[in-house]
Formats: sequence, C-alpha cells, structure tokens
Amino acid sequence: MATLESASGGLYLLLITSLVFSSTSNANFEVPNPWGWTCINETCMKLENVGNHASLMTFSKCKLTCGRDGVLWPKPTGITHIGGETIHFPLEGLTLNGIVTPSQEVEDLAQKAYDIFRANLAKMIPLTENKNGNNHNHMSQIKNRTIAINIDISKSGTATYLTLETNEAYVLNIRPVDDLLTSVSVLASTFFGARHALETLLQLMEYDEEHAALEMVAFAAISDSPKYKYRGILLDTARNFYSVKSIERTLDAMAANKLNTFHWHITDTHSFPLYLENLPDMVYYGAYSPKEVYKTTDIYNLVDYGRVRGIRVMPEFSAPAHAGNGWQWAKNKGLGDIALCLNKSPWSSFCQEPPCGQLNVVNENTYRVLGQIYEEMAVIFGPLDLFHFGGEEINLSCWNTTENITNYMREKGLNRTDDSFIKLWSDFQSKAYGLLVTANKGKHIPGILWASNLTKESLLGMHIDPEHYIIQIGKSEIDSQLKHLLQKGFHIIFSNEDAWSLDCGFGSGYKNEDSSCGGYKGWQAVYNNNPTKITINRTSSFYGDLILGGEATLRSTQTDEQSLDAKLWPRGAALAERLWTNPLHNWEPAETRFIHHRQRMVKRGIQADRIQPQWCHQNEGLCYL
Amino acid sequence: MATLESASGGLYLLLITSLVFSSTSNANFEVPNPWGWTCINETCMKLENVGNHASLMTFSKCKLTCGRDGVLWPKPTGITHIGGETIHFPLEGLTLNGIVTPSQEVEDLAQKAYDIFRANLAKMIPLTENKNGNNHNHMSQIKNRTIAINIDISKSGTATYLTLETNEAYVLNIRPVDDLLTSVSVLASTFFGARHALETLLQLMEYDEEHAALEMVAFAAISDSPKYKYRGILLDTARNFYSVKSIERTLDAMAANKLNTFHWHITDTHSFPLYLENLPDMVYYGAYSPKEVYKTTDIYNLVDYGRVRGIRVMPEFSAPAHAGNGWQWAKNKGLGDIALCLNKSPWSSFCQEPPCGQLNVVNENTYRVLGQIYEEMAVIFGPLDLFHFGGEEINLSCWNTTENITNYMREKGLNRTDDSFIKLWSDFQSKAYGLLVTANKGKHIPGILWASNLTKESLLGMHIDPEHYIIQIGKSEIDSQLKHLLQKGFHIIFSNEDAWSLDCGFGSGYKNEDSSCGGYKGWQAVYNNNPTKITINRTSSFYGDLILGGEATLRSTQTDEQSLDAKLWPRGAALAERLWTNPLHNWEPAETRFIHHRQRMVKRGIQADRIQPQWCHQNEGLCYL
Repeated sequence: MATLESASGGLYLLLITSLVFSSTSNANFEVPNPWGWTCINETCMKLENVGNHASLMTFSKCKLTCGRDGVLWPKPTGITHIGGETIHFPLEGLTLNGIVTPSQEVEDLAQKAYDIFRANLAKMIPLTENKNGNNHNHMSQIKNRTIAINIDISKSGTATYLTLETNEAYVLNIRPVDDLLTSVSVLASTFFGARHALETLLQLMEYDEEHAALEMVAFAAISDSPKYKYRGILLDTARNFYSVKSIERTLDAMAANKLNTFHWHITDTHSFPLYLENLPDMVYYGAYSPKEVYKTTDIYNLVDYGRVRGIRVMPEFSAPAHAGNGWQWAKNKGLGDIALCLNKSPWSSFCQEPPCGQLNVVNENTYRVLGQIYEEMAVIFGPLDLFHFGGEEINLSCWNTTENITNYMREKGLNRTDDSFIKLWSDFQSKAYGLLVTANKGKHIPGILWASNLTKESLLGMHIDPEHYIIQIGKSEIDSQLKHLLQKGFHIIFSNEDAWSLDCGFGSGYKNEDSSCGGYKGWQAVYNNNPTKITINRTSSFYGDLILGGEATLRSTQTDEQSLDAKLWPRGAALAERLWTNPLHNWEPAETRFIHHRQRMVKRGIQADRIQPQWCHQNEGLCYL
Repeated sequence: MATLESASGGLYLLLITSLVFSSTSNANFEVPNPWGWTCINETCMKLENVGNHASLMTFSKCKLTCGRDGVLWPKPTGITHIGGETIHFPLEGLTLNGIVTPSQEVEDLAQKAYDIFRANLAKMIPLTENKNGNNHNHMSQIKNRTIAINIDISKSGTATYLTLETNEAYVLNIRPVDDLLTSVSVLASTFFGARHALETLLQLMEYDEEHAALEMVAFAAISDSPKYKYRGILLDTARNFYSVKSIERTLDAMAANKLNTFHWHITDTHSFPLYLENLPDMVYYGAYSPKEVYKTTDIYNLVDYGRVRGIRVMPEFSAPAHAGNGWQWAKNKGLGDIALCLNKSPWSSFCQEPPCGQLNVVNENTYRVLGQIYEEMAVIFGPLDLFHFGGEEINLSCWNTTENITNYMREKGLNRTDDSFIKLWSDFQSKAYGLLVTANKGKHIPGILWASNLTKESLLGMHIDPEHYIIQIGKSEIDSQLKHLLQKGFHIIFSNEDAWSLDCGFGSGYKNEDSSCGGYKGWQAVYNNNPTKITINRTSSFYGDLILGGEATLRSTQTDEQSLDAKLWPRGAALAERLWTNPLHNWEPAETRFIHHRQRMVKRGIQADRIQPQWCHQNEGLCYL
C-alpha cells in the first residue's frame, strides 16, 4: 500500500512537471522538485526523477527509512529496527489511546508529555499548509488513518522528578494493524523513559513536502536507554539576562535531544536577577533593570516546564566568588560588607573578569543571608535532588587585600599563605553545605563543586568528601586531578573546556582577557569528546558509574538571547549523542543524521546554527570525499 | 524645563522605591532602578540615586548627551554638536512639516524614508507600553510636544538611484522653538544624504524606560559625509537559501549603519535560486526546493527596499567558476555541456569546495545563455550602476581534465600550460563584459572582479583594464597585487579575509577544508582594518579616490538565516564606522558607543550578537581597565 502511494506520487510529479514548465508565467515555478532519492549503502542518493527513476522516493521517506538508525538522534543504544515503508496520516488521526500509570500524578505528566509531542508534531506542518485545503491528500487512506498511541509505565515507576537513580529506558513499537490503523506502544519504567520514547516517535515522523502530509515509518521496534545519567547544559543568566521565553526554548531543544539537566548559573558578580521574596533587595540592587528579573512564578513555571520534558532544572548559587552586585544593601542595613572587592578597579588585580566580587567568609551575616537564599531556592526549585555550589575562580588576593579578612587572620593567629586562605574557603564550604541541608529540611543531597584548588590531591581529604560532593571538571584539572578524584571515589561530571565550552572563539570580551579559550569548538570536537576514553587514557582504569556524564557550558560574556540558539545548537545535540549513546565511533558516521537533526530542530523553532551547505544535506556523504 | 523634568523624575523614583520595597508581594519588584547616571569625562557613570545624587540622569539621557559624539554610529565626519539637555515627546507629536525636492520621484523617496524613520522610532517603544495608558506622561508638555521635520534636497539632487558619484552628505539641525515645538531640519544634496540624516536623527532619540516616553536631544547641529563611496556587505544565498524577509532585515540593518551596497552573491555551484522568466529551467534544476526561489517580484521588491534605504542591491553572477547546479537542463536540450565537472567526485580534485562546477568557455551556447541571464538581471536589478562578475577560484584542472576543453586547445594549437588556460578565462571575461554591455542597452558600467590570477601583474595589461573593471581584493593579493593594481589606475574595494571575512572561525564545514580561515574576526579586528593605512604601508603612496571602500563578506557554508544576524552584526557596524568615518583611532575609543549601538540594533529587530556583559554597558569603560 505504502509503495503504491509513493509510486503514484512519483507519476503525479512527472505529469505536473511537464505541464508547468511550458508556461513562462512567474507564479508557475511552484512545482515539485525534479529530484528523487534512492537508498544505496545506507545513503540517500539524489537522482533526477525521470524514466526508470520515476519511482524514486521523496526526500522525507528516504531520510526516515534509509540506514540502520534512520534519522534518530541521539542514536538508540538497544535494538533499532526501522521498516522500509512509510505511511501518511493527518494530524487529527493521532490519538492517545490509553495510559497505564501507577498514579494520577504520573498520568498527568504522561498526558502533558503527549500534548507536547502533538504540539511539536503540529509545528512540522508549514503554516501555509494548515490553512489551505490540501489537494494532494486525495487518497482516503491518508485522511482516515488513525495512529493510536498507548503509554504504559511500570507500577513501580512513581517518580515525578528526576534523580540520579531514575530509569530513563523505554521500548517503542510501531505496528500496522490494518490499512487504516497503526498502533504505537510505549513501555517505560518511569514517566521519564516514556517521554523520551515520544521524542523518538517524533523523529520517526516527517512532514512530506511533496505530498503535503505527515508521514511516519510504518513499522519500528526500538529499545533504548542512556549511557550516562547526567546530560547537561549550563546557561549563565547573570553576565547577560535571558527572557523566560528563551529559557523555555532552550529546555525544549534539550528535550528534543534527551538532555536531562539544565544547570542554571543564575547569579554572578555581574547581576542578580533572581527575585527572592525574603530578600527583595537582592534584585533591587542586583538586577540589570526592573524588567530583567526572574519572578518566583517564573521559576516555578520553568522547573515544571523542564520536568514535563524530562529535565531537572538545577540551580547554582555560586560562592564565595562570582557573587557581587545585588549585595550592596547589606552594608546599608548594618550587616557589614558581605560582598568584598565589589566592582573594584582595576579588576584584573582582584578577580578573573570584571566586575569583581567575593563573599566575606568571616562575616557571620554572610551565613545568615546565605541560609535564607538556600531556603528559598530549595522551595522554588524543589524538590532538589542536586544543588550546584559553584566554587570556581576564588581570588585569594581579594581576601588578602581586605582588612576585614586580614584582621581576622591575625586574630586567629593564621598566616596569610595560600593554604590558609584555602582553609578559609574550605570552612566556608562546610558551613554552606550545612546551610543547604537545613534549607532542604534536613535531607542530604549531593552538592556539585567545580574542581579547583579545594579539590587538589594534597588537600582533598581535609575539605570535601565523595559522600557529599560531585566534582565537575572544567579546565586543566583533567590532567592534574581526575585520577586522584576517582581514586577517592568521587562522582565526576565532565565539562572540559577544550571541547565543551560553547562560548569560546568569539574574540575578546575584555581588554586583558582573550575570551577565545582556544577557539571555537566545532561540533566534531564536541562529539568526539569521550569521558570514558579520556578516563581510561588518564587513569588506565575503568571507573564505570563514577563518571556521571557531562555538560556543555555557555557562559554569557558574549552571548545573550539574540544568539543563544546559534551558540548552543546544534553543538548541544552533538554533546547529547555522546552522552546518551556514547558511540564507539567519532563524528564521521554521525554526520548525515546530524545535519538532518539540525534541520529538524529549526522546524521546531530552534535557531540552530548551520553546519554545511544544504547541498550536502541533499547529497549525502559527498562533501566528505 | 528639561532639567526640571529629570529632577522631578528622580524624586518620583525615590518615592516609589521606598514605597514598594516595604511589601514582599512578588509583583512589586516592578520598580525603577535605584541607579542613576552622571557624565564625567565624557563617560556615563552609574551611582545610587539617593541623597545628593537624587538628580542623577536616566541612562537614556546620559547616553544621548554624554561625550562629544553621544551614541552616534557611525561617528559623523564633520561638525558634531550635541546639546546637554533632552526633551520628551509622544510618537504622535512627530510631523513631516515640509519636503522640498527637485522632483516628484525624489519627493516620493523622501516621504518613504520618513515613513521608515517613523516606523523604526515606533519600534523603540516596548510593546507593552503601546497598549497601556501611560501614567508617567503626566506632564502636558510631553503629551503636546511637536517635533516638526523639514527635509530640503538640492535642486540638482535628482538622483533616484545610487552611483559612485552620488553625494551622500547631509546637514542636520535640531532646535527648540518653544516649550511645545522643536524644529528639525535636514539639508542634503540628494535623497541619499537626506535618508542618512534621518538615521542620525533616530540615533538622537531613545525610549526612556523610566519615564515611559520617547526622548531626544533638545539641540543638535551635525554635518556629515562618508569617507568612502563603497560600503558593502556580501551575502551568499546559494550555499544556503535566505528568505526574502531575512534579506529585508539585513538591508534594514545596513541602513541603520549607513552601509550602501548589498552585494548579492545570488548563485553558485551549490544552487541556483534566482527565477529567470527566460530560463525557468535554471531554478527547476538549481533551486534546493520549489520554495527556495527568489521570484521576479521578490527581486523588484528587494531592489526597491534597498533603494529607499540608501542601498544599491548589486547582483553578482559568478563565472566561469562557482556555476554548476541549475545548468543540468542544457545538455537535455541539446546545448551540450555548459557546466563542466558538475558535482564531480572527489571534489577536491576539481574545485575548491563541493560541489564542483565550472562553465564551458569553449561552448558557444554558454555565451548565448549567459547573455540571456545578464539581460534579465539588468532588468530586474536595474538600473545597474555596477555589476559583479565574480571571477574567483577558477580551477584549471577542471578544464584540463575535460575533453571538450582539451580538444579545443589542441585544435587551436594551444598548449595546456596555466597561462593558456588563463588566456581562455580572459577571453571568456572579455566576451562576458560585451554581453553585459549589450544586456545593459549599450551602456558601459564598471564590472567588479575579484583579484585573481587574471589580475596578476605579469598578465594585467593583456586582459583587463581600469576603464571597465574595479578590483575587489579578498585574500593574499594585498601583498602580491595591491601595488601594481593601483599603479595601473584600478579602483579597489577591500575585503581582506584576515579582517572582513565574517564566516571564518566556525570549525570545519568540509572534511578536507578548515573553514576557520584564521579564526573568528572579532569586532575589534573588523574595526581596525584600515584600507588607507594598509595602502600607504604597502605602496608608500596615497591613492585617494582609487580606494573606493570595502566590503565584509558572509559566505554561507556554515550560515543560513537562523544565525545570519549574529554573524553579520554588530561586526558589520564596526565595518560601517571604518568606512563612513575612517577614524584615525582604533577600536578603543569607539567601544562605549559600539556597545550601545548594538543594543539599538536589537531594539530594531536585528538579532545582533552580544559583545560584552550588560554590566559593561551600564558601567562604561570599567571592563577595559
């Protein structure tokens, strides 16, 4: 049946082609392509649709069915069986036939995930097609076809928010029942697996431009689960502000890639855009403007927006460095200086980048306020399963030039060596952890810290331990710290700058600083960055589950929402396949799927950057000979 | 009066500030900033708006009035006098009081330019403010104030399209007549100068967020004219397609920067998106899809869209290389092979990048069709004052491996040395020029060619001459060719890749090619690139008017409309000041104006990339200490 459809489509195409080009009227070039595609050696090949090629496939059908993994992204890790035929169907033919879940809450989540899936499918249909009647849909099979979806979540799958224990596996089956009915079944241990299945299902569908109808593979059987538990994107909303809408778009793009952690670097020395009911002065002094603020309702909405898309929205409160503007009120209210070196000049003497700011760790009020901040964050971002403490780029000379601190050191009989200041920092971190537990109603959760001087081998046992902390590796610490951290049993998140810093390569943002950090990381470099392989190379051991995953970072020195999408995507998708699939191969075999996936993201409303000329998309593999 | 306004504004601010933060309700942080600005040493400084600072300026007022050039971009080259006071006014208060022009056609253009100006001004007003009644506009002076604009174009200024002779100078005066009336006068020799004046006027206006009203400088006197005649942007719509809307947006952004040439690299080997009534098969075979086509009406519209914004939309028809897909029909119709090496594999043997394609210069049909193409282009892009022939990256081994060509060489008794092939190319170019003149109804116009082997010193006299050709310098030819080209009297356009290639630095687009071309060019590098200085350094002479100007190029290997704005802007604005103003200084003194100008472009709907954290925008000069 499906074969009949495409054959007649090809014939139809030939007929109007010859009709149209006999006229010279300008409107008449609105005709189908002369091109068709055929699948040879798992590659879609473009040929002219004449003579013995008259039954070539449309581009969409070839992409859906050609190659072992079709155009799935990230590539499933289990069984992937995709049939060679496709069927067309109307959006209205889609039905959620049944949901079996262990609780009403989970059912509500599943229903929402289905609604999102359907809305994303609708986005594939060009706006013009929605309005006009569609003269290609002349076959009643298309008009009357039903796609009946069943979602089945295990009895034990009561989880309603993501943790490091969450099972994200799923099984997806598409089976034709008869000419008019196709059955889709989703099986998963949790809601989170089920929503991933719907993303995969969406990738088995295309909008067929030539027949002006939705199209899907007629048969598929897929089992899938991620290789890493933690698959993240860091967004910094303090150097520059991002609208709630642009963050929602980011979460949507992450969902399309089965990424599961939005690491929200929400505050920094530059600005404090997070409205706190208990500390409204923080945004009053710290927001760039009254409009550039995240309200409490925004946070609730975004946490929920993420959750129904399988994403934990994980807050960071960076301290003791990366804190500055917003704290001006403290002194006025008699709490003393809490942010030291605030906006101090010349910045290069007191911090890594302007403006400077670092918390006063010897002022007891610092801890009082920090407790309040954690408390409110635990509520609005809750329930928390992870919390990011930041902890990078502590500038010891800021403390060393602040009387308040140096007096304290003298009183306590401490010298002013680096080690003493690191001890000060370490004490701060211990107190901060205690405050977090209190804020979290006594519940211990892992805190994440960037690898730093605090996590050096010589100091490690003294300060932090693997029971309470996960270490995120950003810069050169892969060489200097990875091995001893793993030996001590720490869980690790990879964010090595040479591959996963997405803000690099855009020239200098500050006079004295080359922001290029080794230049732009092309998607190939992002894709090839393999935490397991790096670990084995560096340690000659396999640490298995200690490698939690990885995260691409977008610090916003030279980005705001205008270029957000182009900087995050499609490179974030390359990260996603590395972390979900962890393929043995490098980027080369992934190229054609990747190019197509980028196009799919654009149709979904993500302004992903372009990787190649469209000619390379239409002529697979020929740009790499 | 204006002083009174801001003083009372400051007081008002203080009052509601103290009111609002007594409440903890979430909605209440919608309050003014605690911050005000003061102008010290031509720099806006941010201070808390309390006590003796209660009369600090708003940010918008400080930006408009602080510093010799305010926030004008590009900086005027003549007198710039901007008063220290501002006034507020309603959009409805703007009137076009009178237009004096030499013809109805020029008047129509001026009227359109005014309408565009007004529409751009309206864009500055936040959408939310448009709808709601505005309780800050409590002073009747704001509500009732009139800004009366007079435009006066010289009697001799009958030009309705741009040429290299067009006088783009203007004089702009803003004078308060009384409390309720401000007079704006625009004087110019041509429409093109007048529309530039309106862009400058727009930059003397801001939307004042705190008073929720439009604001402009109360007094200004500016005379201005460009240092270079040719100020261009190249966009390539063949490697990837761009919607008409995105090209309009590009023209709008160019207009905001007084750039005057949109160099449209419309076709290439990859695709042929230009619909030609006489050759509809070109798009039939050459367009990426039936939807990715520029219709005749699109071209007319875009040429006009540019013209009313002071921009020539200059077509390029690249030949004999960079021509390929689209030409498939020729063979079918018995014209023989016109595009040689078409999509030939492995591409690296026959062209610079995939897909290959190069015109068959020994097939007489090539010239017949080329004549038809030029003819239609001369109409739809007309009237032409310049035409771009392309002429870069000819691959001699494509010809040398094509039987058709090598047979011809043998018949003519020519050897197959590089020089012989260059002679072949040169003959092609001579014929092409003749065809262009014919297409242009016998009128000679300068053709632009990229510097290449054809313009080498040893060959120059033989092939091309400065009467008919302008040379655009792209790559290494600054070292090897600039001097002899100038000595021979050629007019030159600078597009040296090390500074003005905006597509570089995004990793590899083809396996065998590193597309990074020396990495990303930050705005500082774009700004510092000084054609006059380069010429003096290379030639020890000053060639004055032979240096026509310059052009930034965006080839679309790794760009389409999703990231178009971020790649062109604000770097294109850095180019614009170099070409309009040609300042003696490098980027440093331009930085604060530049950052502000980027924000202005965003308000105008251009998704320009971010250069720095907003903190640097609000705290001028402090990021560069």
